[in-house]
Amino acid sequence: MPLNFGDRLAQAVRAKNNAVLVGVDPRPDQFPAGWIDRFAGDVIAATREFGCEVLRTVAPLVPAVKFQMAFYEALGPAGLQALEDTARTARELGLIVILDGKRNDIGSTAEAYAEAYVGSPKAAQPAPVWTSDALTINPYLGSEGISPFLDGAVAAGTGLFLLVRTSNPSAGEFQDLVAEGKPIYRHVAERLVQWASPHAGTSGYSPLGAVVGATSPAQLAELRGVLKGIWILVPGYGAQGGTAKDVAVAFDENGLGAVVNNSRGITFAYRKPEYATKFGADWQAAVREATQRMIDDLQSAMPR
Amino acid sequence: MPLNFGDRLAQAVRAKNNAVLVGVDPRPDQFPAGWIDRFAGDVIAATREFGCEVLRTVAPLVPAVKFQMAFYEALGPAGLQALEDTARTARELGLIVILDGKRNDIGSTAEAYAEAYVGSPKAAQPAPVWTSDALTINPYLGSEGISPFLDGAVAAGTGLFLLVRTSNPSAGEFQDLVAEGKPIYRHVAERLVQWASPHAGTSGYSPLGAVVGATSPAQLAELRGVLKGIWILVPGYGAQGGTAKDVAVAFDENGLGAVVNNSRGITFAYRKPEYATKFGADWQAAVREATQRMIDDLQSAMPR
Repeated sequence: MPLNFGDRLAQAVRAKNNAVLVGVDPRPDQFPAGWIDRFAGDVIAATREFGCEVLRTVAPLVPAVKFQMAFYEALGPAGLQALEDTARTARELGLIVILDGKRNDIGSTAEAYAEAYVGSPKAAQPAPVWTSDALTINPYLGSEGISPFLDGAVAAGTGLFLLVRTSNPSAGEFQDLVAEGKPIYRHVAERLVQWASPHAGTSGYSPLGAVVGATSPAQLAELRGVLKGIWILVPGYGAQGGTAKDVAVAFDENGLGAVVNNSRGITFAYRKPEYATKFGADWQAAVREATQRMIDDLQSAMPR
Repeated sequence: MPLNFGDRLAQAVRAKNNAVLVGVDPRPDQFPAGWIDRFAGDVIAATREFGCEVLRTVAPLVPAVKFQMAFYEALGPAGLQALEDTARTARELGLIVILDGKRNDIGSTAEAYAEAYVGSPKAAQPAPVWTSDALTINPYLGSEGISPFLDGAVAAGTGLFLLVRTSNPSAGEFQDLVAEGKPIYRHVAERLVQWASPHAGTSGYSPLGAVVGATSPAQLAELRGVLKGIWILVPGYGAQGGTAKDVAVAFDENGLGAVVNNSRGITFAYRKPEYATKFGADWQAAVREATQRMIDDLQSAMPR
């Protein structure tokens, strides 16, 4: 049996002594000045190398990275080869690779997505086809949309993060509707615990995690209570307005149970006037300092 | 302004005089005997050519095809190049291309998905990067998860199909929960009409459609009533148990307003003993006959 992803993530967070999840969202129009020219205008190569350079910069500091698949898909099929190449570099650097694809489907189609990004118990090799340790998924289709992914994750030692309560202002339009006395996101959270708990590892955490935004601290605290043994991927820190204090409630008493994502605030740190002034063309130094500051910021707010 | 997708789909359905949507879900383990050997074991080439051969077979008969992205993603980055090549062939054959990717995200990430598969009003060319006329999307994130896609579709003359009520047995776990006196799927459907109606074309139909499964005929009939001016993509006919009578309620009085998907029942028709006996190695003939039978079956159940 492969090591349970819940345990792998716990080990990685303990090893780096922080729970920062760097998001790589490569937007060519935000690359450092002259970056694409270095690759003779080849946007695919520029995207791959930008991502790899961010990874080399943050790998000594953080346990995990998250790739936003959309930005690679926007570059056409070649963009996805760049994603795979970049993810392979992340793995070589010892980082846990989370693909943020929010995939969802049922039956054999869900199995095909699982085979791609999570793994499959039916394949000769259960490991996923792509370089991936975990995938984000969407709950709208119900348990038939979850079980093929979970079977793959259990077989391959990979993980999943199921959208529960997202960080955008309109998240509540459907997620907060109240049915049978509780909001939809809570129905999703309670089902998630049922699906996940048979698969808890020795750390107490399961391969099936949750996505809960930092922008609603009250809901994050409520859901931490419901989601026993569930890793929470917390988006919304930084650019979207979530603070270290907001996300502190997502952690358990051992400082585990949550990874906090920051994408733009780290990847494009060099675009902030403060960092631009300090570091000039050394954009990697800006990325490094933004990462270290986030680590320190989270540390300062951690429950003791 | 490009032609409205609601109108384009109406034209295509009228031109072929049927609303069959052939689903291309290439599963290498179900290809005709010896098919992969023809390509010297190259599964990518075999997948591309299998899809193109299905397209050549059905193009004279039907208005549109739907590609299940998962099966291409399961083949790694090269699989997505095969998808693009196959979609280009579909377009050359005059077919409307629907990518079934069930994508979902917010803000700039949703914009990136839209740029990839639907188009973008911000790009120099609003057309999508991939060969695509429409994309399936998932509603869980609320209106910020819809508007970037809809803006792209309006700018580029492409379409969207939003999951409303899916065809799987566990679809109701979240979609049927009742909030404020009506099920979640109905909340989604009513919002969909609000989002779509400002964009109705001369046919009365909008670029933003809905996915409603054939496996719950009562809900399909209810939603046809709610979804005025909305194309419904109906999965679940055939292999999943939906009949022509079940789907007939999805059409308007002019025989428009719905496209009915069949994937396995057409693409892998040659695996049915009945067709295998009749056609032997001529698997394309089985695909052709299964398509024609579905056209006739739907016709026989159409409201007159």
